[in-house]
Amino acid sequence: MAWSNPRMQYSCMRRYRGPVKLVVLDWAGTVIDYGVCAPALTFSEIFKNEGVPISNEEARGPMGAHKRVHIQRVLENESVRGRWIQKYGSPPTEEDIDRMYANFVPMQLSVMKNYSTMIPGAVETVNQLREKGIKIGSTTGYTTPILDDLKPVAAQQGYVPDFYAAADMVPQARPCPYMVWLNAIKLDVHPIEAVVKVDDTVDGVKEGTSAGCWAVGVAKTGNYVGATEEEVAAMSQSELNRKLQRAYDTLIDSGAHYVIDSIVDLPDVIADINRRLAAGERP
Amino acid sequence: MAWSNPRMQYSCMRRYRGPVKLVVLDWAGTVIDYGVCAPALTFSEIFKNEGVPISNEEARGPMGAHKRVHIQRVLENESVRGRWIQKYGSPPTEEDIDRMYANFVPMQLSVMKNYSTMIPGAVETVNQLREKGIKIGSTTGYTTPILDDLKPVAAQQGYVPDFYAAADMVPQARPCPYMVWLNAIKLDVHPIEAVVKVDDTVDGVKEGTSAGCWAVGVAKTGNYVGATEEEVAAMSQSELNRKLQRAYDTLIDSGAHYVIDSIVDLPDVIADINRRLAAGERP
Amino acid sequence: MAWSNPRMQYSCMRRYRGPVKLVVLDWAGTVIDYGVCAPALTFSEIFKNEGVPISNEEARGPMGAHKRVHIQRVLENESVRGRWIQKYGSPPTEEDIDRMYANFVPMQLSVMKNYSTMIPGAVETVNQLREKGIKIGSTTGYTTPILDDLKPVAAQQGYVPDFYAAADMVPQARPCPYMVWLNAIKLDVHPIEAVVKVDDTVDGVKEGTSAGCWAVGVAKTGNYVGATEEEVAAMSQSELNRKLQRAYDTLIDSGAHYVIDSIVDLPDVIADINRRLAAGERP
Amino acid sequence: MAWSNPRMQYSCMRRYRGPVKLVVLDWAGTVIDYGVCAPALTFSEIFKNEGVPISNEEARGPMGAHKRVHIQRVLENESVRGRWIQKYGSPPTEEDIDRMYANFVPMQLSVMKNYSTMIPGAVETVNQLREKGIKIGSTTGYTTPILDDLKPVAAQQGYVPDFYAAADMVPQARPCPYMVWLNAIKLDVHPIEAVVKVDDTVDGVKEGTSAGCWAVGVAKTGNYVGATEEEVAAMSQSELNRKLQRAYDTLIDSGAHYVIDSIVDLPDVIADINRRLAAGERP
Amino acid sequence: MAWSNPRMQYSCMRRYRGPVKLVVLDWAGTVIDYGVCAPALTFSEIFKNEGVPISNEEARGPMGAHKRVHIQRVLENESVRGRWIQKYGSPPTEEDIDRMYANFVPMQLSVMKNYSTMIPGAVETVNQLREKGIKIGSTTGYTTPILDDLKPVAAQQGYVPDFYAAADMVPQARPCPYMVWLNAIKLDVHPIEAVVKVDDTVDGVKEGTSAGCWAVGVAKTGNYVGATEEEVAAMSQSELNRKLQRAYDTLIDSGAHYVIDSIVDLPDVIADINRRLAAGERP
Amino acid sequence: MAWSNPRMQYSCMRRYRGPVKLVVLDWAGTVIDYGVCAPALTFSEIFKNEGVPISNEEARGPMGAHKRVHIQRVLENESVRGRWIQKYGSPPTEEDIDRMYANFVPMQLSVMKNYSTMIPGAVETVNQLREKGIKIGSTTGYTTPILDDLKPVAAQQGYVPDFYAAADMVPQARPCPYMVWLNAIKLDVHPIEAVVKVDDTVDGVKEGTSAGCWAVGVAKTGNYVGATEEEVAAMSQSELNRKLQRAYDTLIDSGAHYVIDSIVDLPDVIADINRRLAAGERP
Repeated sequence: MAWSNPRMQYSCMRRYRGPVKLVVLDWAGTVIDYGVCAPALTFSEIFKNEGVPISNEEARGPMGAHKRVHIQRVLENESVRGRWIQKYGSPPTEEDIDRMYANFVPMQLSVMKNYSTMIPGAVETVNQLREKGIKIGSTTGYTTPILDDLKPVAAQQGYVPDFYAAADMVPQARPCPYMVWLNAIKLDVHPIEAVVKVDDTVDGVKEGTSAGCWAVGVAKTGNYVGATEEEVAAMSQSELNRKLQRAYDTLIDSGAHYVIDSIVDLPDVIADINRRLAAGERP
Repeated sequence: MAWSNPRMQYSCMRRYRGPVKLVVLDWAGTVIDYGVCAPALTFSEIFKNEGVPISNEEARGPMGAHKRVHIQRVLENESVRGRWIQKYGSPPTEEDIDRMYANFVPMQLSVMKNYSTMIPGAVETVNQLREKGIKIGSTTGYTTPILDDLKPVAAQQGYVPDFYAAADMVPQARPCPYMVWLNAIKLDVHPIEAVVKVDDTVDGVKEGTSAGCWAVGVAKTGNYVGATEEEVAAMSQSELNRKLQRAYDTLIDSGAHYVIDSIVDLPDVIADINRRLAAGERP
Repeated sequence: MAWSNPRMQYSCMRRYRGPVKLVVLDWAGTVIDYGVCAPALTFSEIFKNEGVPISNEEARGPMGAHKRVHIQRVLENESVRGRWIQKYGSPPTEEDIDRMYANFVPMQLSVMKNYSTMIPGAVETVNQLREKGIKIGSTTGYTTPILDDLKPVAAQQGYVPDFYAAADMVPQARPCPYMVWLNAIKLDVHPIEAVVKVDDTVDGVKEGTSAGCWAVGVAKTGNYVGATEEEVAAMSQSELNRKLQRAYDTLIDSGAHYVIDSIVDLPDVIADINRRLAAGERP
Repeated sequence: MAWSNPRMQYSCMRRYRGPVKLVVLDWAGTVIDYGVCAPALTFSEIFKNEGVPISNEEARGPMGAHKRVHIQRVLENESVRGRWIQKYGSPPTEEDIDRMYANFVPMQLSVMKNYSTMIPGAVETVNQLREKGIKIGSTTGYTTPILDDLKPVAAQQGYVPDFYAAADMVPQARPCPYMVWLNAIKLDVHPIEAVVKVDDTVDGVKEGTSAGCWAVGVAKTGNYVGATEEEVAAMSQSELNRKLQRAYDTLIDSGAHYVIDSIVDLPDVIADINRRLAAGERP
Repeated sequence: MAWSNPRMQYSCMRRYRGPVKLVVLDWAGTVIDYGVCAPALTFSEIFKNEGVPISNEEARGPMGAHKRVHIQRVLENESVRGRWIQKYGSPPTEEDIDRMYANFVPMQLSVMKNYSTMIPGAVETVNQLREKGIKIGSTTGYTTPILDDLKPVAAQQGYVPDFYAAADMVPQARPCPYMVWLNAIKLDVHPIEAVVKVDDTVDGVKEGTSAGCWAVGVAKTGNYVGATEEEVAAMSQSELNRKLQRAYDTLIDSGAHYVIDSIVDLPDVIADINRRLAAGERP
Repeated sequence: MAWSNPRMQYSCMRRYRGPVKLVVLDWAGTVIDYGVCAPALTFSEIFKNEGVPISNEEARGPMGAHKRVHIQRVLENESVRGRWIQKYGSPPTEEDIDRMYANFVPMQLSVMKNYSTMIPGAVETVNQLREKGIKIGSTTGYTTPILDDLKPVAAQQGYVPDFYAAADMVPQARPCPYMVWLNAIKLDVHPIEAVVKVDDTVDGVKEGTSAGCWAVGVAKTGNYVGATEEEVAAMSQSELNRKLQRAYDTLIDSGAHYVIDSIVDLPDVIADINRRLAAGERP
């Protein structure tokens, strides 16, 4: 039976009708590092060093998560887990994960140097959004030390978001929504319907939907096509179509309100969200 | 024209179906200080000291806001503003507000001593919620120093929330939703649909709706009836009815999803929210 | 493109959550004259007198309408029209309608005497509704003189609604909603969601939906089964089933929110409407 | 448990898809008397005469209500009530209200002479609506004698609505919806979704939502900015912005579907409502 | 109480966002035989031969149904049934229906020759839809032998749908949705939201809504205006308006999502459906 | 701009309010072969025979699809594809797939013998549904020859559905909805809202949602836990929890309206669907 109270003869439902005020952008695969190669390579290397090489697909599986959680989840993959046990006679331990993550950070810093070009159009798109009065936040699965290395490289190319959230600033990173809320708090933006999260991974999309904001998936420049700009250009049309559609489907299934090829397509999506907000819709 | 993308042949809307996980409680009028007398008295005193006495209603108007913002808003009330100008020949300045707020803090600390009894049933209700696995957060229009004084007094009576957010921990306090999100981050709770904000003021209700969570108004023990437990008991039934219905209407108009007499009625509301969440509804 | 206004950053949707306050009842087929025989017989007689006999089904077709409009619509029936022209060589004129309607009123008054028994349970149901604080309004396709004859007959049997609307009190009768609104004005009831219209005809159902209130169709005691209590009792089960289902389907297709066998089933429907109102639904 | 009936295997929900057919306009602040000065001044005068002067804001508070109810509500304002009791030693009685209302009518008639200019663009907008086949109704908190004085003054300026409803024609005036329904009956317009109520006060907006029709608030020329055209022109931009946004927020919170600056903006709103009706939406 | 499962903390609602892929067209009255004269004449003839002549309206009543069911339903019409009993002394038997249906088929084949011109614009419209990649299915109340006669006649005029469903291919024909699903299976089209059924009868519209797809009614060239192109051209404007509006209302009441004059108006409807699908709506 | 037509002043939305009439059940993992071991083992064997052994997880990935499509999709798995190319120097060809599928059928028939026990409670649940008048349909990824072998084995254990659809009866099997529609046609059930599809795989769930009907996922006895009854009983609670939650999440993400442990939980779900249908909801 529905709750009722004789003094509550009416209810009033408040709805935000204004425009988008804040876009929270992921880093690798969304604005920088076309194809998310730096972390993929680093994870591959880390596992090779442990004597349990993993496929590219296995390396990319949990992308979006805090990097330590990422290692842990790869080790939970039944196939990788099987090979680990085959090699070591027992499942991986917390100590194994700690060691691998300790190795991850310096290796990532070194690999990143070669994969830190801004994605074509990202800087221009960010400028275009700012001209409309939209603030630019950011979240990442990287921790502060790695992010601190990344900031100046992006800044040199013209990308300086208004706030930087790193995975270690919150109790849990993606798919939990805490970094998105942290951006909104620090950038003084509300209500939640005025926020848009943009990301190339399932966990990054859920970071948005779980926060209560709009979530936009990025397919072509991201982790699920998983290829550099050059590799994409060299791919056959049918191969690209297949990979692209799979990336779209993966992001759609995770609950993304919109999926786009790259950040360049974001302004059209913002316009559509503004139209829907004006019509009383919400994420 | 609606946005469309030939690769996005489907969309997937994710909806939370689980139960409430976190209740974020206001302090005065919700769990402590039946009638919200401490701040009302303090504001009255502050204005009397300035030579511009204000009515009880004027003192209570902006309740819920950061206390410095509260002073500012009382001064924006046309009638108060008129009397101020009549007295001083010019409108109040930022310095006036600073001085009044500087006086507010010590006076509030002193007044609060007499108005810090827990509201009947509050402690029991909180225990009951915790038994169902629900975490207890808190937000307030008080700043840290006042809250630090309040904590031990409440603790002695058996009330120790899992997190304390004060108005000065965020860029803007109520009606902005930042303290609610801060609670959710610190207490590691998501998604936003699993959170319930409980408050006795319009700004406190909006703190919840603007966060994207459920908002419950508290009418009888709060600021809009504005009377101590003894005063309420002494009131004629018709007077109480009139004041109570006005409090309900004020909280309903602010967008509260539910309005209740006191925190004792909260578990029934949580049960109804759980039913609605299970049915796919959201705040 | 949706309308938008930068000053309208929010909207507030008010919804009634309280209970049903007013039930507006039709007369023949709903509370009195099981099977709606009085008007059906009268129309048959009127047409027979013109030398153009009509079938029972043709006589009942436009039931619910103002009685003069009813005559007009029977004459618009292609088959009746054909027979009229066959007889008179030309289509019926306004004068014909005026004459037939002039004959209708006295004949109806005379026929009605034999068909003015309250439908079983009607009086008890009305009393039951009143005990819950619900007011009882009424509308009819009869004009004031006929209604004035009907009132004392019903009153003698215990049925005295709080307001009587007749078809000639408004610019247009059913399916226009004016008599429903007139009841709500005179009985001082609002909002429109707190009103329920009950009727056994398509036009009477539309009188309700078009007013914006709840509409309940009555199938078994009404015009589309079109049989007296005795005739219904004598009918084979399969015949009754067939007629009853047809009556249900006719009333459903007209937009009735609920269809019931007889007014005796109304209290359960009111309970369901109250549940839905409490949950924020509306007609 | 939801109601069900095995014979009701289907339901049919009827929705109006056609255009707006009737606009019901308030008088002061909507089409005439920019700033609603006539009644505000009259109320101020009435209270001054009683020896209990009230502020402009207090005088305007219950605007929209029947004028006798307005006096009663001002006297229920805690601050005014306090001053009254301070002066007379006891609360105001029904006799006090009767006397004040008896004084109100002649004073209003005299004051109104100076405040009965049509609001700029009102006549043109009404003509524009009529060209699209829309009927023009009207409601007011004035009673018939005052309205009878107002009619010729408006007519001389070119404003002659199709129907005039006065507060004394119905059991209760605003916020009850009876005058709106009376307009629809008299002007033979249905369904309720085809009606739009336009008003500058909270009670006038609720008159519409409670009728079941669309409600449009008017902010700039109305009671909550509360300034004549000349005063508005003389206001600083920031002062106007502040007052205008407060008026918007007040009207939005009362449940208005749209809020506009003045009646001149109405045709755009009608176009948006027509678009929404065609898409199957309703108020 | 709503079902719930602690492991089902989320749900995911999939929605089709792509365009219309399949249009399933009725035959007579939709693409061929303007006014649906062939079956109407045949039924009239059949009943005349039995010595129980029926009106044109009676002959057309159940149009859309399997032709044997059609005969049965005409015989259930109270007026026809009465005349049959008057003539034969007893109600019609299954043998009577069998005999009449046995006579129907050859007579229909003979009559059809004179009424098998494609409706103006039908062929062009079908081509236009195909250019957009839409497949063309078909359903009919005719059985295979009659359809086999019809196919070459239509083909000669340029109309060759991608699949032909006849009433005898499924356990029950209209209003059951089986022929629509059969088209979708055979033409390998899904999901159901990508299908549009177009028909000029109530049963044909229900064939669509009951399948779960979009349903479009055709008014002017169909059974409810029931006149040839020449007869329509010769009709007075008011007569046409009356008949046309009645046809619209009949089709609307049966649940059609759209009603149009003729198939020529279909592409605009498809565009609107595509817009709604892209916005996440469904039939 | 929304489509509109001046003759379409109203629309009528028909909604089914009756109960569930047909349940369409998958075979392996839903009613028989707890853990879906027969096909998993067969696929493993087939790939081992080709010299490219696959993991259990790889063998189960595309479960639900037509078995030939299943082989093809395993070969599209990047990791399997890599190993194949490594072995043969070139990607697998259509001929390879044909050969493997040719080998699949006899091996499946032989393996199935050991894995054809009905899942505990399945027969009783089916009987329980039939007592409520619900028909039992079935679909499978097996082709007719395999199904023909399976039928008598199930029948001996008491399971005889009312219709058997095999993957080769339709142009495409799952995730296309054709087998569901085929069941509804053959079992003469409509509308689509009265149908429930039950399955343990993603493709089987989509077979339902894409048909427009309700889809229920089965987690514990199905492919994603992928363990026999004995293996499940022997599993540690934490291991079972992990696998079970993963299975739930997979089925939820595919769009299942409900996910349950096993078919034994189906009647509660049917009751909830009936409640929602009665309230006007649909899949």
